[in-house]
Amino acid sequence: MDRLDETESVFALANGWVGWRATLDEGEPYGMPGSYLNGFHEQHELTYPEDGYAFPERSDTVISAPNAALVRLWVDGERLDLSTGTVRRHHRELDLRAGVLRRETEWISPGGRGVRIRSTRLVSLPRRPVAAVDWAVEPLDGPVRVRVCADLLANERVPERSGDPRAASVIQDPLTAETGRHDGLDGVLVHRTGRSGQRVAVAVAHRVEKPDATATATELTDDRFRLALDGTLRPGERIRVTKFAAYECAPVDGTPADDLADLVVAEAEAARADGFDALLDAQRAALDAAWATADVELDGDPELEQAVRFGVFHLLQAGRADADHTIPAKGLTGNGYDGHVLWDTEGYVLPVLTYLAPELARSALRWRHAHLPEARERAAELRLTGATFPWRTLSGRECSGYWPAGSAGLHVNADIADAVLRYVAATGDTAFLAGCGAELLIETARLWHGYGHFDDAGVFHLTGVTGPDEYSALVDDNVFTNLMARRNLRGAADAAQSCPEVAARLGVEPAEVAGWRAAADAVHVPYDRKRGVHAQSAGFTDRPEWDFAGTDADDYPLLLHFPYLELYRKQVVKQADLVLAMLRSPSDFTADEKARNVAYYEARTVRDSSLSASAQAILAAEVGHLDLAYDLFAETALQDLADLGDKTADGLHLASLAGAWLVVAQGFGGLRDDRGVLSFEPRLPRRITRLAFHLRWHGHRLRVTLTPDEARYELPDATGDDTVELWHHGEQLRVTGDSPVARPMPPLPTPGPEPASPPGRRPARR
Amino acid sequence: MDRLDETESVFALANGWVGWRATLDEGEPYGMPGSYLNGFHEQHELTYPEDGYAFPERSDTVISAPNAALVRLWVDGERLDLSTGTVRRHHRELDLRAGVLRRETEWISPGGRGVRIRSTRLVSLPRRPVAAVDWAVEPLDGPVRVRVCADLLANERVPERSGDPRAASVIQDPLTAETGRHDGLDGVLVHRTGRSGQRVAVAVAHRVEKPDATATATELTDDRFRLALDGTLRPGERIRVTKFAAYECAPVDGTPADDLADLVVAEAEAARADGFDALLDAQRAALDAAWATADVELDGDPELEQAVRFGVFHLLQAGRADADHTIPAKGLTGNGYDGHVLWDTEGYVLPVLTYLAPELARSALRWRHAHLPEARERAAELRLTGATFPWRTLSGRECSGYWPAGSAGLHVNADIADAVLRYVAATGDTAFLAGCGAELLIETARLWHGYGHFDDAGVFHLTGVTGPDEYSALVDDNVFTNLMARRNLRGAADAAQSCPEVAARLGVEPAEVAGWRAAADAVHVPYDRKRGVHAQSAGFTDRPEWDFAGTDADDYPLLLHFPYLELYRKQVVKQADLVLAMLRSPSDFTADEKARNVAYYEARTVRDSSLSASAQAILAAEVGHLDLAYDLFAETALQDLADLGDKTADGLHLASLAGAWLVVAQGFGGLRDDRGVLSFEPRLPRRITRLAFHLRWHGHRLRVTLTPDEARYELPDATGDDTVELWHHGEQLRVTGDSPVARPMPPLPTPGPEPASPPGRRPARR
Repeated sequence: MDRLDETESVFALANGWVGWRATLDEGEPYGMPGSYLNGFHEQHELTYPEDGYAFPERSDTVISAPNAALVRLWVDGERLDLSTGTVRRHHRELDLRAGVLRRETEWISPGGRGVRIRSTRLVSLPRRPVAAVDWAVEPLDGPVRVRVCADLLANERVPERSGDPRAASVIQDPLTAETGRHDGLDGVLVHRTGRSGQRVAVAVAHRVEKPDATATATELTDDRFRLALDGTLRPGERIRVTKFAAYECAPVDGTPADDLADLVVAEAEAARADGFDALLDAQRAALDAAWATADVELDGDPELEQAVRFGVFHLLQAGRADADHTIPAKGLTGNGYDGHVLWDTEGYVLPVLTYLAPELARSALRWRHAHLPEARERAAELRLTGATFPWRTLSGRECSGYWPAGSAGLHVNADIADAVLRYVAATGDTAFLAGCGAELLIETARLWHGYGHFDDAGVFHLTGVTGPDEYSALVDDNVFTNLMARRNLRGAADAAQSCPEVAARLGVEPAEVAGWRAAADAVHVPYDRKRGVHAQSAGFTDRPEWDFAGTDADDYPLLLHFPYLELYRKQVVKQADLVLAMLRSPSDFTADEKARNVAYYEARTVRDSSLSASAQAILAAEVGHLDLAYDLFAETALQDLADLGDKTADGLHLASLAGAWLVVAQGFGGLRDDRGVLSFEPRLPRRITRLAFHLRWHGHRLRVTLTPDEARYELPDATGDDTVELWHHGEQLRVTGDSPVARPMPPLPTPGPEPASPPGRRPARR
Repeated sequence: MDRLDETESVFALANGWVGWRATLDEGEPYGMPGSYLNGFHEQHELTYPEDGYAFPERSDTVISAPNAALVRLWVDGERLDLSTGTVRRHHRELDLRAGVLRRETEWISPGGRGVRIRSTRLVSLPRRPVAAVDWAVEPLDGPVRVRVCADLLANERVPERSGDPRAASVIQDPLTAETGRHDGLDGVLVHRTGRSGQRVAVAVAHRVEKPDATATATELTDDRFRLALDGTLRPGERIRVTKFAAYECAPVDGTPADDLADLVVAEAEAARADGFDALLDAQRAALDAAWATADVELDGDPELEQAVRFGVFHLLQAGRADADHTIPAKGLTGNGYDGHVLWDTEGYVLPVLTYLAPELARSALRWRHAHLPEARERAAELRLTGATFPWRTLSGRECSGYWPAGSAGLHVNADIADAVLRYVAATGDTAFLAGCGAELLIETARLWHGYGHFDDAGVFHLTGVTGPDEYSALVDDNVFTNLMARRNLRGAADAAQSCPEVAARLGVEPAEVAGWRAAADAVHVPYDRKRGVHAQSAGFTDRPEWDFAGTDADDYPLLLHFPYLELYRKQVVKQADLVLAMLRSPSDFTADEKARNVAYYEARTVRDSSLSASAQAILAAEVGHLDLAYDLFAETALQDLADLGDKTADGLHLASLAGAWLVVAQGFGGLRDDRGVLSFEPRLPRRITRLAFHLRWHGHRLRVTLTPDEARYELPDATGDDTVELWHHGEQLRVTGDSPVARPMPPLPTPGPEPASPPGRRPARR
């Protein structure tokens, strides 16, 4: 019970559109119940002790749709609540192949009556509006009188966590009933939000197995539809309720409430007509297809193998291919960060999905494209050029309430551009480029070109930004931002030339393109010659050092114990920043520079952000520190399963889970895609005897298998003519359907002493 | 009526402890009524969209004490309200010599009845708790029936101005009645605040002249004591009410409510016993004494002469000599900035009061000293050393709700130290140094020493601070801050040696003192060799230029039309910063550097802060641009009289008013006090045919008289042995009681072309 809200996140089910946290079927005890729909949110006001120009006045907060997963149970008049009575057995199992959450509980009521409950939940991957629960109760020994209530519940009570009363007020009772109806055993509720102007409809269709004498009743109120079953179960008898739920939402001024109700009723009834087994089969089929690419084999460390698969499973759950959709930082697994989408998506999640399920990456980028109008408006409001995407949002509008670590993080624009370029390079999807990608590239390039300036020597600078590391803010020439902006500018210039009709529509003149290229070519990359390392941003290496010796173990995370005043001005790094720049732009750094930079920044990076470990792992691997890399790998992979940040209760850290796959592919596989060229420099950690993963490249499924002796590249699905060109440790290879290619693993160089982490901050040794 | 709330500020009366805004006697129409007591405030919560470590959780807001100035009038049943009927005459006069506000109004009621009202208000300078109104009404023509209500009113309604509902809720009905009583014509009310734990008592004692037939009644409710007079006035008759009010406040757990009531009743009755004329005489005597030093004669520009005297009058009203007390940025003339004290006090107001009324400067510094405990606590909370004084406060605790332009302005600590050093240098008050000053110097020096760092070359840096210019933030090596910190460090080192018992009590070791001196000697002062100017902070002159050509006239003030993101990273200056550094630390800049710096920063300074013009004027004068200096002088002197910033309604800009005297003394008189040496380099603007001002130096009153030909220094009150040493344009002079010294004014150098201001931002030509 202690880890109740954590397990609600870990066992959450989602299909990119509907998300069910794994609150127990009976609803209580709960940690933080949540049934989310992608983009379904409420607004609340933001006020500031001292207001400033263009500080956002409103924020979006994810709110729960009506909860269709509930099945409450009374045993001889006593309500099933695992915090009472005796729990003889309680087992939950998230089946990553089947895509279901199974549960089996044996419970002895305080009055001494025993029951066994079994349930299986799914949120249908192929059938977007549909989620279902198959639930059954049976007596353990003697006969028991039971009452089973299958509820559809709106405005479910949730605990208050926020210190801000305005945010809290949004989460309590956010929905107003519009209509509801029932028909036989089935019911539907339609609600609307108060301010965001959204309408949500949820229908439940039931299939019931029960002893004949069981009484059946339904009850409909504004916020609840209930199917109640009352009867006595003798040994061998059971009550089984299968709930087929369907969700839809629409703008209040869109589909009328009754029509929306009809829609979900039809979906729920259709699902029931097909039956639960059909849903299970379709779920399995969808996952079989996904796992063919997504699976990772990691011989030698079954725990981390499972952790990587767990992470990939949640990434697949977070994506949705058939519409413009967003992937929030927590997916649909919790209301952390108010359910906002952050740069985590383009910076961490899409680099994985681009290779494992590129159609999911595409739909997330299409969502960004759909919100270009708000990004253009925001740029105009900030008196900038082009488009400025929000640091955090659900609706497309900026919701960042502390601009130095929010809106100033302009790199989110380059992260989006980077994700576009990677997606197009990996898929060759020129239709997407012409339809969405080029416009995203061009409008973000316009931001950079207008924002930066050339100095007297003709060097191009980007000043006053915040890079990935949030223990620095408002810095000049952040290397990550500058190199990403360069990629953005060049990508836009290329796109303007390859998509002339888009360029013409956006009024791009050749001189503008030339300006982008000139800025890109002249971008400043600060380097500290004296210390022989790159400065994360101008002057960083001249800052005073952090007093690590005087920092206690319980002073971490530092942002809860030190003011920004101290953090911002010292050489202390929350999360990979210069190191991430080396990952994104590998050819801008020599091997020696990388090694020195890794050592320098490892010593100053405290990993108070879960975004950090994966990038550090990948670069540590690249420069040969495979033990350190492996320990950092474990940290990112176990972020949520071990709740390392004590934040899993609020939802999973998708970027950290994505990071686990990235360490496998980019750290140990040495995968790089700089400038659209696929290359590998595999280097296997000692503990791993065999590592296999896959990725999609221009429609082909490439399988990479690594052993200490050999790297093997193959196209298992391909015919003879299909070809993928790639590089292996500097050697160009051509892999075809006929001919897998194997190459020896080069001996690992002796890397020298392991870089020191800040005292007490080295990742746990594995 | 359009300028109602502005005149409430301009005509405000105060004695440093009680402040009455000049709301009309009859209470309505009003702009923003206010009766303030120094330090009397309420608290409210601060919440942030995204919280951060050590962000202040509470703020102080000045609230009105019960209003004792009201005299309401009904004429034949119609209430006197200047927005109705016909105003035949309305005249108000702030008498700067007498220290009273006189008013005469002739009003014809909507029903056609005419009355003349005369009133005289004062807030007693020598008698701290006391304020009084002498009010009379008489018929203009025929007989009129009148009702006169002399009210004492708590929780007077005030208009809402703040966008923050929490702050607004504090201002409406902030007081809870504790007790009230009446005795004959007199009454008293005692109230308490809800959260700040303060109790306020106000008594009114009345003297009434009236026709015999006039009916008299009193009425007491929780929030109001009323003396009502009803009768008919024939030509030649009048009703005259003289209200003697007394104010006191105390902590709720201090003096009991009844005792506090007794106290103010006794004060009010004593004032009545002495009579209004006695109050007038004492007021005049107090001001005569003050004006002997404070007066400025400015032949050639009577308007600005009056403006300077107006400003000095309000500075004298803001001070209080007999207790530790604060001088908020608006004095007691309005609730702008929530009534907070800012660095305006030590940076602008005390440099004037130190010379004109040093006992007032001392009491303001004693108030800082009284709040050293909170400053030490704040330093510990911020994990800094020594003491960190709040950016804005009433209670001593930090109330800044936007830290980059608030708490990061650490220079406030050096401003306090600077004010201590100036006060001690100008007065020789070693008792103050030993009692308060040394401790202030030492604890602030500890802040700087711990905050800064030595680089590898042994240079001392202060990084990540915000200097005076609020269009930059979190900069490194702000010249103003660094030079002020140096003065602070050296001043502390000297004080530790001259006050060994203080040093011992604070545990100052010789090594610590040596550390302060070492840091001071090594302080970095960024200089841009290429451009030949000082960088306001490291890298400032390399920043992109502001696009002034693309900035519209109505884009000012810029902070209301551009995000900090743009302002902070560009070469645009809100207010004098490097220029102020040249004023504070003149010997650190050569004359050529000053001239170049003035030109460089004039071109980039938009004066969106009223703190700016005076410093710019003084330096423009120093480098010979006397026309520009004069126009800037007019801007600072007329800030409130002409409401140049459209903010006078919220209270007067004491720093700007102080700036007017500073321009006279430091700009045209060339007064400097660097390192405690009194020097003058007078240079008279063309328009001024004679300029005379005074200042106190070690107890002597020095009179300085400037004409185009001659500068004359004399000690009008001194006997033969009294001596003041000073420098005149580099020549050391000794002025004694016997022998005034006159020296020729040197010819003004030809300064070259006037520095360009940003387009459209040059001060108005005078």
